[in-house]
Order: sequence, then structure tokens, then C-alpha cells
Amino acid sequence: MVEFSLGIDFGSNSARALIVDVATGTEYGTASCTYPGGTEGVYTDPSDHNLARQNPVSYLAAMEVCVTTALEQARKKAGFDPANIVGIGIDATASTPLPVTETLAPLSTLPRFENNLNAYAWMWKDHTSIQEADAITAAARQRHPEYLAKCGGSYSSEWFWSKVWHCLNVDPEVFEAAHTWLDFPDFIPVALGGVTDRAAVKPGVCAAGHKSLYCEEWGGLPDTDFLNSLSPELAQLRSRLYEHAFPSDTVAARLGAAWAEKLGLPAGIPIASGTIDAHSGAVGAGVGNGRMVKIIGTSSCDILAEKFPGELPDIPGICGLVDGSVLPGSIGIEAGQAAVGDIFNWFVSKVCDSDHKLFAKLGKEAAQLKPGQSGLLALDWQNGNRNILCDQQLTGLILGMTLHTTQAEIFRALLEATAFGAKKILDRLEEHGIVIREIVCCGGIAEKDALLMQIYADILGRKLLLSASEQTCALGAAIFGAVAAGRYDSTESAQAALCRFKDHVYEPIPENQAVYAELYDLYSELHDGFGTGNHAAMMKKLIVLK
Amino acid sequence: MVEFSLGIDFGSNSARALIVDVATGTEYGTASCTYPGGTEGVYTDPSDHNLARQNPVSYLAAMEVCVTTALEQARKKAGFDPANIVGIGIDATASTPLPVTETLAPLSTLPRFENNLNAYAWMWKDHTSIQEADAITAAARQRHPEYLAKCGGSYSSEWFWSKVWHCLNVDPEVFEAAHTWLDFPDFIPVALGGVTDRAAVKPGVCAAGHKSLYCEEWGGLPDTDFLNSLSPELAQLRSRLYEHAFPSDTVAARLGAAWAEKLGLPAGIPIASGTIDAHSGAVGAGVGNGRMVKIIGTSSCDILAEKFPGELPDIPGICGLVDGSVLPGSIGIEAGQAAVGDIFNWFVSKVCDSDHKLFAKLGKEAAQLKPGQSGLLALDWQNGNRNILCDQQLTGLILGMTLHTTQAEIFRALLEATAFGAKKILDRLEEHGIVIREIVCCGGIAEKDALLMQIYADILGRKLLLSASEQTCALGAAIFGAVAAGRYDSTESAQAALCRFKDHVYEPIPENQAVYAELYDLYSELHDGFGTGNHAAMMKKLIVLK
Repeated sequence: MVEFSLGIDFGSNSARALIVDVATGTEYGTASCTYPGGTEGVYTDPSDHNLARQNPVSYLAAMEVCVTTALEQARKKAGFDPANIVGIGIDATASTPLPVTETLAPLSTLPRFENNLNAYAWMWKDHTSIQEADAITAAARQRHPEYLAKCGGSYSSEWFWSKVWHCLNVDPEVFEAAHTWLDFPDFIPVALGGVTDRAAVKPGVCAAGHKSLYCEEWGGLPDTDFLNSLSPELAQLRSRLYEHAFPSDTVAARLGAAWAEKLGLPAGIPIASGTIDAHSGAVGAGVGNGRMVKIIGTSSCDILAEKFPGELPDIPGICGLVDGSVLPGSIGIEAGQAAVGDIFNWFVSKVCDSDHKLFAKLGKEAAQLKPGQSGLLALDWQNGNRNILCDQQLTGLILGMTLHTTQAEIFRALLEATAFGAKKILDRLEEHGIVIREIVCCGGIAEKDALLMQIYADILGRKLLLSASEQTCALGAAIFGAVAAGRYDSTESAQAALCRFKDHVYEPIPENQAVYAELYDLYSELHDGFGTGNHAAMMKKLIVLK
Repeated sequence: MVEFSLGIDFGSNSARALIVDVATGTEYGTASCTYPGGTEGVYTDPSDHNLARQNPVSYLAAMEVCVTTALEQARKKAGFDPANIVGIGIDATASTPLPVTETLAPLSTLPRFENNLNAYAWMWKDHTSIQEADAITAAARQRHPEYLAKCGGSYSSEWFWSKVWHCLNVDPEVFEAAHTWLDFPDFIPVALGGVTDRAAVKPGVCAAGHKSLYCEEWGGLPDTDFLNSLSPELAQLRSRLYEHAFPSDTVAARLGAAWAEKLGLPAGIPIASGTIDAHSGAVGAGVGNGRMVKIIGTSSCDILAEKFPGELPDIPGICGLVDGSVLPGSIGIEAGQAAVGDIFNWFVSKVCDSDHKLFAKLGKEAAQLKPGQSGLLALDWQNGNRNILCDQQLTGLILGMTLHTTQAEIFRALLEATAFGAKKILDRLEEHGIVIREIVCCGGIAEKDALLMQIYADILGRKLLLSASEQTCALGAAIFGAVAAGRYDSTESAQAALCRFKDHVYEPIPENQAVYAELYDLYSELHDGFGTGNHAAMMKKLIVLK
């Protein structure tokens, strides 16, 4: 009898379901569904570029479609029986917190809030709470520097407390109406399990640790005094959140009757506690034991899961180090770049005023250029710098243009800039003793863009592998589903059985490496000069003058 | 009886003729003709962006067409008689030196050189001789710092000696075959007058002083020892050039029989000595006595003609100060920006991959933006920096991009960057005691682009006038023709009679000025940091890596 695990991956614009043979990883069904409503599921505000919200109801609608479709696919294959789905895993974007009622229903389901974007899920890339993030950083620097040491030196407007506090500041009615808040990865197990009691929620340590300042070293969430110093309402909210967060192989809930019926699955299937999508992708791509996973898409995420003999280390400028967050029993390390593919999309759509068809032409022309040939150098900060500068108010820069500079040359310079930004992160990790044995790439751009991958290999000076699965996030979720169901004794052993790599490997080309080494020195000069050095104030001043 | 002056203006791509009533300035005929051959008259080398050559024969062909056409137009007007043309003036781009035979025929007219671009005219914007320019600067710095003090601190690859020396280095056969070299403004009077004897040439002090290191203070052209230290062949060439250069009201030649017949004009009309096109434009726009003329086109040229009580002053970073170069009896001062319109053309054609139709859309959108609203700041060095940094190897920079930055925002930032660059020149002049009472603008962009003019008024903090004539260069030439013919006792009195301004004046808007003052501080930080400061080496390094 073949057994199966169901992984469900909730990305920025769509949900994807994957059904795998729990012993071999063979895929039996996969389907995706864009979140209904908004623009590809995202609600924006033309007067505020920082705002990005989603309706939690749309997550459930998309999940129903993609899981049902994947099951239909699987049913056509010999040996599949939905009754043999033994585990379910979940991953979702984070921090994407949403306010819920006392019975854990999204506030957006209440008629009086159904059109209030503050009652929706505050999407990870919502940057409306920059001021609150700065205030949290300032307060933590004074009272609890250890909080910041684990999250790269500053607290982000993309994270839980900034957003919840901003809601309190701009829409106290919503804040008041919310009994508690759930981060997106925790909301799905709650919904699937029909959990209606806050005390029964088992939040994942992944989002808690990376986004909500949760750490066992200091007793869980930030202490009440600290939150009180920000706002008494935040301190009160703490008591309606959670005391403990759980690793990803924990059974967070079991499939409830309502969703069992909707999906045509037996009730009671164990659901692993939800993880951040990128972390799940890293697990599906084989992260761990010196193998770093780089997820390259609209933004990038670098994930490691390492075992350290002593204390949890601090690495300045790196987003997060969280015990048990990626692989139970290891220290999960997350870093990344706030925009990668988004920069290329911006260039094509906003600067060239063209559409995605231009990518093929630019890619072809850019591939004809040698490293350094464009004479250009760029900083990849169009969406701020997540690591290693942790400064969302930094902006992009392009240098070296002449009257002969072409579109393709600028395009290539932007590809290179993101690779230089990636190298800054790699260098910082290695400077702090992290040994990176191997890099596996996944994500839309890594899979499709051979030019970018070669540039990354040349600039990082590393062999780059590709994950064989095109659904590494959903595969990671399925792996946790399998472990939570008890089919493996550890996540690592499940990975060894289920993760695969593509045959093609990108190798650095020595003559390119030599030129890029020189360009990287110049990139570093710009990076330091505008990031923290004598020109650092200039970029902020330009924003003030806007 | 009405008398007339004929001005002929030789620009980068075409010649223009203008026939005016010598007493009132009323225009009787005007016509232009693009130089035949090449791309709009320019021969380039796809493997070397720095090369730009023109065939001197094409200058004469275009002149014949435009003068004949202007005469046909004039003949249709009452009171016109070609026999009453009393003077001819000439202006042309410089330094655009061309090698000639012993009888002053262009080498390109010899069959063996007809396809050799080194035997053509070396267009002002030809930058092939950067190495020679650097070597001349280095030698002058050591032996004759006074040479550099009059030309902004460094000798340019756009100028006479750099080009002639480069010809010797790359094509000694051409250099050997050339009996002497003429700069473009001197070539036309020679051709029109049928002058075949080098000793009879009366070169204009304008090109000689601004481009060939001619100055009476040090006895004319650079001394033989100095030239010998560069190359013995250059020292020998000096003896086949000239001892004296002449102001623009000098009769350089009289119309010869051959051209008189071709054009249908009486032989013997006095021809004023040729001037640089921009200087002639300044004269036509009323330069002098505290009135600065800004010619804004593909590049920009700022011209002043001032009387100083004492010695000829030195102003660091300003291209040229030459006694008698713009107005006889005044010190001509020339500064400028290596690219203005060329930067906007580059953005539209190369970055946006569009055509001139996009200008209207971008202009309209950019006009909707407030100062500072784009959050962008740019350096206008896509073609190097002529003043006040005098460094052709500097390159462009754009700063402040986010994922929301649009084409129109970048376009406006480029307009603003050229205005900030213009302010750097204005500031430098004023720091050295030049009193600028009034600024008159002319040139294609100044006439057409109201947005740019308003931005310039706001950033320069000055009222800007526009010249009423659309042919200020040809009008300036016609003014010199009138003075050379003895119809005025000075160039100034001819200007007072013949120069007009448009009624519309651009006035600075105080709230825009306030924002731009803050942006100018940031521009200055970038300008200094990348121009001479701690990042100055970076731009050069990128060029080396190309």
C-alpha cells in the first residue's frame, strides 16, 4: 500500500498543492490557484505604495481549488487512494499577520470589516509600518539589544509587531475588535483543523522566531515591560497570543470534519505546524549540514540550518537565527535580498515601458556581453536592503552610463548587482564561521534564467546546483507532513529520501571570476559609501524631499 | 538702397545661411542643408565610439545649396539685390581641424585619401586622442602651467593639438602628406576666397585661442621647445601654421571669382575671419557687458565677453579665456557641458528604445512632477564633464530608484541634472568675480522645451531670456560680416542694432527654488565625491575593465 503526504504552499499570489508518495517522493498530483480578488490576490492603495493586503478568505478559496484539483489528478494514477494520505504540511508567506475573532475567524469575515483593508491579512511585503519598525528598533537597542542581535540589528516593517502596532495606530477599531492575531502559516492549520480556541493553537517557531522576536533564551515573545513601553495595548495583546512556539514536525492540528468533507479526505489526518514558505522551500531543496539553499524569485531568500556546539550565535546584518526554525534540532538562519526579480520586472515594465516579452530579447543581448564590458555598476536597493544593511530606506543606483549605454547593458548590470548583493550575504556568513559546503538554488528565476545563474556562479565563485522539484516549498511542506505523521524519525531522513537535484550544475568560469572580483571591490565601495559611509544620509534626504 | 550681410553657420550636421538687412536685422532669406555623406554628414567607426569625422568637401556642397536657396528666397522680396550684399561672416564647429595640401586643398580631395577618415576633418566631438590630450596636459603642467590656466586646467581631446598629434601617431602617412592643417572656421574663408597660399591665411583668434593654446601673452602658439618635447614633427608643423591670429571683425579674405560665380554674387565681398559656431551664436544673442549667453542643444555652451581692467584672469575649471575671441576688445570666456540634449536623446533612444515621439509623452508626464518628487538625483556626465571638472572620462550616475520609479521620473531627473551641472559653472564664474547681469538662452532645446527652461530658471535662480532669432549663430556671423564691411564701428553697436529678445521670460518660482537648493547640495556631494573625491577613481576603473 502506497502512502501519501499532502503539502500546501501559500505564496504571494497563489496556493499550490502537491501530493507525493511518502516513501519515494514520486509526485502524484500538483495544482495551483491564484487567490481570488484584488490584483492577483493583493489589495493595494494607489496613494500609498507601501500598502499590500490580502483577504484571508481568498486563501481558503484557493486552497480548496488547488487541493481538489491535485486530488483529481492523483486519482487518475494507479495505486492512489485519498484515504492513504497520512500527513499534511503547510507553508505560507510571513509575517503576514491577520486579526481574528475570539473563535479565530478572520475579522474580514465580519460584515462591518469586509471592505476594511486593515482587517485583512497584512502581507509580508506591506511596508506601511516603517515608523513603528524604527521605534521598535530604537527601543530594543536601548533595553534589549539581544532582541536585535538575532534579527540582523534592526526590526523590520515587514514583521509582526510593526504591523500590529501600526494597525493600532491607524485603525484602533480593528485592533480593538481583534481578539488575537495569527500569522498566515498558523492560520491555515487552525482553519483546516477547525480550531476555535486560542489556547489550542500551536504556532510554528519558524514565523514566531524570525518575525515576532520569539526566542526561548528570553522566555518566548518580547517581555511585557518592553511591549508596554511601546504601547500598553501591545502588552495586553501579548497575553492573548502564545507562550510557546513549536518546531515544524509538531502535529499542530488534525483535519476537521468540515474541511475533510470539502476536500474528500478522511478527518483526523495530522497537520504539521505551519512554516514560512521560503523555509519550507529550503527543506524541499535539501537544506542542512553546510548546504545552503538560495530561493531566487521576485526577492531572494538564503536559508541555512546548522548545528552549533555551543550557544546560538549572533551574526550582524543577518535577518534571523532561530533555534529549530528550519529543521527541528538545528539553528535556522535566514537572510535575503528585498528584491531580485522585482528589480528586473521594474526595469522592463517601468523603465523600458514594455512587457515580459522584452525579457527574451534583453536576456539574449545581455548574454553576448562580457563581464565588465558594459562599464556599468549598480546597487540592487530598489526595494531597500534587507541584508546585510537591514535598511529599507536605501534606494537603487546605477553608475557608469555613457551616451552609448544600452538597455541590455543596464539589464545585465542589474543582474550583476543582485549577484553582488548575494555575495555580501555569503561573505558575512563565512566571516562568522558558517561553513557553506554547497549551494542549491530554486525558485522561478533560478529555474528559468541560465544567464543569471552563470553570473551568480561567477560572482559567488561557487558551483550552483538546482533542485529537481519545481515545487520545493510544497515538497518541504509534504516532508513535514510525513514527519508529523511519524513516517520518518527526522526531517533530515525524510529529506534524504525525498529531495533530488538536477543533473546540470553551474560552474564558475575563471576568467569571468577575475573580472567580477575587481567589480566586486568597486561594488563594495559603493555599498559601504551609500549604505553606511559618507553618502549614507543622501538617500534618506532624497526620500524626505519627495 | 538696402544693404545686406550674409551669415553662414556650419553646425555639426548642416550648414545654414541667413541674409539680413545690415541696418535693421530684418531677415530676407534663410536656408539650411545637411552635409551629404556619412550619417547626417558624420563618419563613424562602429569599433570605436570616440571617432567622428567629416568630409570637408561636404561642407562646401552644403554651403552652395543653402546660400543659393537663401538667395532665391531673398530675391522674392522687394528691395533685395545680391549686388548689395556688402559682407559675409562665417562660423563653424571647432576644433575640427583638417589636413590640407600646400595649396590649401583638403587632403580628402586627393584620390589616395578619399576614403581615409584620418584625412577628413576631425570633428569637434571626436575623442580618439584622449591619450595625447593627457600627455599634453601632463607636459604643460610641468613646463607651462600658464597654458592650462587659460583652458580650465587640462587640455582636451576635442582640441587641435591632441587631434593633430593623434593623426601623426596612428596615420603618419596622412600627417606627412599634410602641408598644414586648418581649423574648420578658417577653412571656409580660405575656400570662399580662393586662398592658396598659407601665408595669406588670417586665422580667427577664436578657435586659435580656445582650442590651439594661442595667446599673445606667450607669443602665439605654444613654443617650439614645448612642441618638440611632445614630438619633433609637431614642432616642425608649428612653422607651417601661423604667427598671428585675428579678431572676428578682421577681413580674412574677399570672395573669389570661382565662388562668386557659383553663388551669383559679386566677387570681392569682404569675408570676416571665421569664429567658433557657439561664439557666433552668443554674439547673435547679444553677449557682452554682463550678459551671458547659454546655448542649449545636444551639448551646452556658456559664453561671456567681458572687459577687465587689468590682466587676463584665470578661472580654474573653465574651458577658455581668450583675448578678443568673442567680441574684439573683450575677453571671451567659454564654458559648457559636454552633453545636454544628447543625454535626453540617449535616454529616449537607447534606454527606452523608442523614438523622438516619446519626448512629448515624457515631457508632459515630467511636467506633472514637483521638484524632488521623483526621489531621484543624477549626474549629467554621460559624455564626461567639460566644466568645471574638465574630465572626459567621468560617466553618468542615477540614484534613488525604487520599484515604482517611472520613465518620466528618470527623464525629469536627467533634465534637472543638466541644470545642476549648469549651476556649477555659473557658481564658479561668480566665485571668480564675473558679474552676470542677465542670461539669454538660445539653441534648439532652449527654444522648444518650456519644462527644461523653467527647471533651469528654478535651479539657476535666474530670470532667463530667449533670443528672438532662431538663427543666432548665422546672425552672429552676419554681424561680423557687417562690421568687417565697415557698416558699424564696433561689434557691440552692430549687436545693439540687430539683436532682439522674445517677450516671454522664464522667472524662477520661489517654492521650486527652495527644494532645488536642497537637491543642489546633494548634487554637489555626488559631484565632488565622484568628480574629485573619494569615489573619483571608481568611474575610471570601470572604464579600464571594459
